[in-house]
Parts: sequence; C-alpha cells; structure tokens
Amino acid sequence: MKVSELGEFGLIDVLASLVEAGRRNDESWNNLLIGVGDDAAAWRCQSGTQLGTIDALVEGTHFRLGMLSWEELGWKSLAINVSDIAAMGGSPRYALVSLALPEDTEVDDVVSFYHGMLALAATCGVAVAGGNLSRAPAVIINVAVLGEDGPSGRLLTRSGARGGDMIAVTGHLGGAAAGLSLLTEGRHLDIRTVDLLRQAFVRPVPRVKEGLILAENGVRAAIDLSDGLVSDLSHICRASSLGAHIDLDRLPLAAGLSESFADRALEWGLSGGEDYELLFTAPGRVVQSVRAELDCAVTVVGQMVADPTGTVRVLNADGSEFRLPRGGWDHFARPPAGLGQGKA
Amino acid sequence: MKVSELGEFGLIDVLASLVEAGRRNDESWNNLLIGVGDDAAAWRCQSGTQLGTIDALVEGTHFRLGMLSWEELGWKSLAINVSDIAAMGGSPRYALVSLALPEDTEVDDVVSFYHGMLALAATCGVAVAGGNLSRAPAVIINVAVLGEDGPSGRLLTRSGARGGDMIAVTGHLGGAAAGLSLLTEGRHLDIRTVDLLRQAFVRPVPRVKEGLILAENGVRAAIDLSDGLVSDLSHICRASSLGAHIDLDRLPLAAGLSESFADRALEWGLSGGEDYELLFTAPGRVVQSVRAELDCAVTVVGQMVADPTGTVRVLNADGSEFRLPRGGWDHFARPPAGLGQGKA
Repeated sequence: MKVSELGEFGLIDVLASLVEAGRRNDESWNNLLIGVGDDAAAWRCQSGTQLGTIDALVEGTHFRLGMLSWEELGWKSLAINVSDIAAMGGSPRYALVSLALPEDTEVDDVVSFYHGMLALAATCGVAVAGGNLSRAPAVIINVAVLGEDGPSGRLLTRSGARGGDMIAVTGHLGGAAAGLSLLTEGRHLDIRTVDLLRQAFVRPVPRVKEGLILAENGVRAAIDLSDGLVSDLSHICRASSLGAHIDLDRLPLAAGLSESFADRALEWGLSGGEDYELLFTAPGRVVQSVRAELDCAVTVVGQMVADPTGTVRVLNADGSEFRLPRGGWDHFARPPAGLGQGKA
Repeated sequence: MKVSELGEFGLIDVLASLVEAGRRNDESWNNLLIGVGDDAAAWRCQSGTQLGTIDALVEGTHFRLGMLSWEELGWKSLAINVSDIAAMGGSPRYALVSLALPEDTEVDDVVSFYHGMLALAATCGVAVAGGNLSRAPAVIINVAVLGEDGPSGRLLTRSGARGGDMIAVTGHLGGAAAGLSLLTEGRHLDIRTVDLLRQAFVRPVPRVKEGLILAENGVRAAIDLSDGLVSDLSHICRASSLGAHIDLDRLPLAAGLSESFADRALEWGLSGGEDYELLFTAPGRVVQSVRAELDCAVTVVGQMVADPTGTVRVLNADGSEFRLPRGGWDHFARPPAGLGQGKA
C-alpha cells in the first residue's frame, strides 16, 4: 500500500503503534509524558517538564519560492514550531534549524531567511542554538523547537477535553487560506485587506502568551490550528473520545473574508488551515476567565459532546447539519490546494 | 553569491555571526552554553546540561534508494544524530523524526524505516518522542536528538584542545567510504570483507558509551568523524586556535582496506567520512587511561601543535608532508562522490 492510499493520519497511527511497541523500561521512556500524537512531545526532567517538536516546510508542498520572501519563510518556519509549543501551554526556548538547499541558492537569501527567523525568535524568547546544512534538489526546512512548561506546570493536551466543554478559538479564522489564494490566484481587493490576509499566511504570530494563560487558568485541552478547525478539532475528539458540535454562525471569520470571498469564506473558516490560532476546550466559566485575561478575541464556536465515534458536526443556525466541502488537509491523500502541517 | 561558491563552512560562519548578533539578554540565551558550531548545542537547566542536535539525510545527496534498505536508512538516520551527542560526551534521550516522502512511498518501507530506527534506539536508551510527516519530491529525513550530560557533568567540545595534546581516534577509518564504493561501483572481494565494509557505511554504531568514558576521564575535545579525519580535525583546530600533525603511517585503516583498495585506502582513511568514530585530543596519560577503559581500539594518530592558522598537516614517516587528494566533504562546493554531514 502507498502512503497516499493510507493517508497521513493513518500512517501516523501505524507509526505510533510501532513506537509504542518499542517502549522499554528505561529512563527515557519512563520520563516520557507525551509521545507521538500531540502538538509536541513532553518529558519529565528535574526542573519540570520539557517539550519538543519538529516541523517541515517543503518547497512545492508547503510553499513556492516567489510566493513569499525568504525573510517571511524564515519567520514562518520557526512560527509553526513555536505554535506547537504554545498549543501545549509551554514556553519555547531553543531552536535547531536544518536547511536543505539547492546549491545555486543565493547566500543573501539564506541570510534573509535567518533574519526572519531571528526576528520571530526575539519576540518569543527563543535562542537559535544550532542546525545543519545539506544540499538538496529543493528547499526543505526543518526546525525543531525545545521548550518547557509554564509556571503552572500544567500542559494543554489533545486528550484533555471533557463532555460539555465549550470549544473556543483565539483570533480569527480563514485568513491564511485567503492569503494563500491571493498569492496564487490574485484578486482585486483593497490594499488593506490584501495585506492583512497575506500577512496571515506568510507571517503567522504564534500564540505563546495566550497558551501560557490558558494553562494557568485551568484549560486542559488545546491544539493549534494548522490543518483547519474541523480537522484539528477531530484530533481532540479522537484523543478525548468525544464528539463535537460547531455552530456555523459563530465562526470568527477573518476581517474582509465574507465580503471578499463570499463563496469560500465558510470553507476556509472551517478547513482552511495555517491560521495558527489556538483551539481549546474548557467549561464555560473557564472560557470566561480566559477571555478576560487575553488581549485577543476569544470566540466560543461550539461544544464537546458525548460521541464515541469522535465525529465533528457543523450545525447551521436551525440545527441542521452543514455539509463540509472538505475536511482539512491530508498531506498524502491528495495534493492540497493550500497548505498544512501534520504531526506524527 | 551562490551557496556553492561560498561553500558549506563559509555559509555556517555567516549564519553563526548572524545568530550571535541576535543574542539577547534573556533566559534562553543566558542559559545557552554552546550554540552554533559544535556537534550539538548545549544549554543549562536545573538538573545539569541538555544537548540538542539535528541532522538530515537527503535522497540523492546522502543516499540513493536501493543502495541501502529502508531499515538501514532508519538505523543510520538516528545513528548520525546520536553520534553528535556521543561526541559531546552526553547521553542521548529523545528523538524527534521528520519524514518528507514522495506520496508513492510504500507504507511497508516506512514501517521498515521505523524498525531500523527503533532497533538503534533500543541500544542507546533513546525514546522516539514525536515527529512530523510531509509530502516531498524526494525522501528527506530529519532527526533531532535531545540528550543530557553524563555523570561527570563535563562536555567534550571542539574548542577544548590544548597544544601538545595527542590526537586519537576510536575504532577504524575508511570503512564507510569503502562500503559506499562497494555499493556504487561494486568489486569482487571476499564476502566477509564486503559485509564488514558495507555495514560500516549502512549501519554505523555511534560511540555513546565511549563518549561518556572520554568525558569522565578528563578528555576535553572531541568530534565525531562524519566528514573525514582531516576535515573534522580542522574544525577542532579552528575552534581551539591550534594546528595538528597527523602521522600517515599511524592511521588505523579498516580491516581489508589496504589489501583491497590499495589505491584509495589512505585517501579514505584521511577524508572518507561517515565512519562515525570519535576523534579526541588529550594529554598522553589521559589517552592511556581512556584506552584502558574502552573496549574498542584507540589509536594515537598525531598531535596538536601551536599554529594560529589552524592547519592540519599529514606527515609521511620521513617527516615530509603528504599531499591530500582532497580535504573532506563540502556539501555545496561540489557533488560529493561519497557522503557527509556538516553542522551549522
């Protein structure tokens, strides 16, 4: 069977089982708190809990050169990893950067890449600690980020949701997908909207401060929105053995999305991917306390429900089910029209 | 300027300066002990020192499918990273694995890859903690390994050499390059020699135990032999502001190398790369004590000398200088006939 037939998430399941079967009674395994299958891995150390994550950006799959600048590529390569640490409620600390580059890459472009990466690093306390260079037929960027738990010592996991929890998201949705569409297909829009949507795609701002506040306020379940609301929520459902309802008319769509892309706004809000907002679940009173502490928008979009099949249902205002155009990215099932990130 | 014109190590210098210029007075930076430019990064934490490294294997650059099995590829992908932790005198603990794969990759091959990786992980106390899957036009494997300092709390660094130190290597040299040659060009040799040399290339065994013993016995400088003896030693020279002499007739060439590859044995011993042995420098008495404790061969191959230019000289038995056919791998300067790994 090809990986394209099994699909990305099927393959992750196979590999997770393999890794689990290799579990040993040794120090590393005994200290491993969260292994394959969450936003980041977590392991115990004397001073608390450490977090680690790795993500790739592949030319042709996740981006095309010319679509975004090298400086933006550097920012984004680190941002998508920092976002995984944020989704665990942790503080990012160190980055390891592996660049595979064609030999005719311009040195100035690599320098710009590092400028972009270091600009983000400076905003979130990350030190670039090391890396690796290789020759390759295309640009492939891998970044690993190490972090630690926040002051509360609590982590946000995919398995922490409870039946009845409200489902909330930070910020707005669909902007990155709209930005990608602008970059690939173009569209006549006012400059401010174009800029906002483009920035959402090329320069996502990981929600580090927000993740720490969620953990401190007793939120237990979170994930960052890399693949899209429905797809990422389904990971929480599966890990928590629950279902979820999303109320379509509550989606906090990115500014200008409904007006400028009436035909695709809902699709992008539900499954556009790459917004790198945090999706979290918590009792209503916890969502209220979190909202009071966060500077960004916090929108309740639905509720966790008892459902052993782990299904995500999107509901119209009249309670009828909204049919999804598609359910988020699968990196192997078909070439994505947009882009996404899946964690093994 | 293209990266191929600047060269891998020139580019690493540029990036290291950039990263250093981005240094901030914050917790991450203040705890960073060793950044860009050693085998692994090191940072302080409450319980001691943590180590982190990342390395890539790129299809077409570092390997060709069919040249080695997926199981061997899995072993080797982890081994080259574990070797970097070993070269710091540390214990590897956790691995994060990023696989970029063509969509027509067989699921069974990915499973074999993980079997190989887990087989090595079991031998050196590593837990596979997480990872990432992406679609790509070729197979690109990135592994990050996190580790910690050994019981002595001392690290082996590239900058720790002193004038007068003996230069020693564990095990034997040139086997991996000969194995690669057998895989690409073939040669009629006895089966045992073929198997030994092939194994040296496809299944290197990182010197974890040996690295810990070096650190405990007071060795201060080490590097793992990924690019080749001369190239890797020149990193120690540069970081330690010293020169080095290698005595050509002391090279511990891999078994069968001189007999079977008379024309290339010395070249491979000096600059073949990928043997993943440890090269270290220490006073003669320390080398003696280390040799007594290690199960593997330990061979003194030369001496560190005062030389601010950081030159590595290879000397014939009569003291005249041996001319190198080439000086190790540079991933961008030209397509390597063999393979190598450079750390940024």
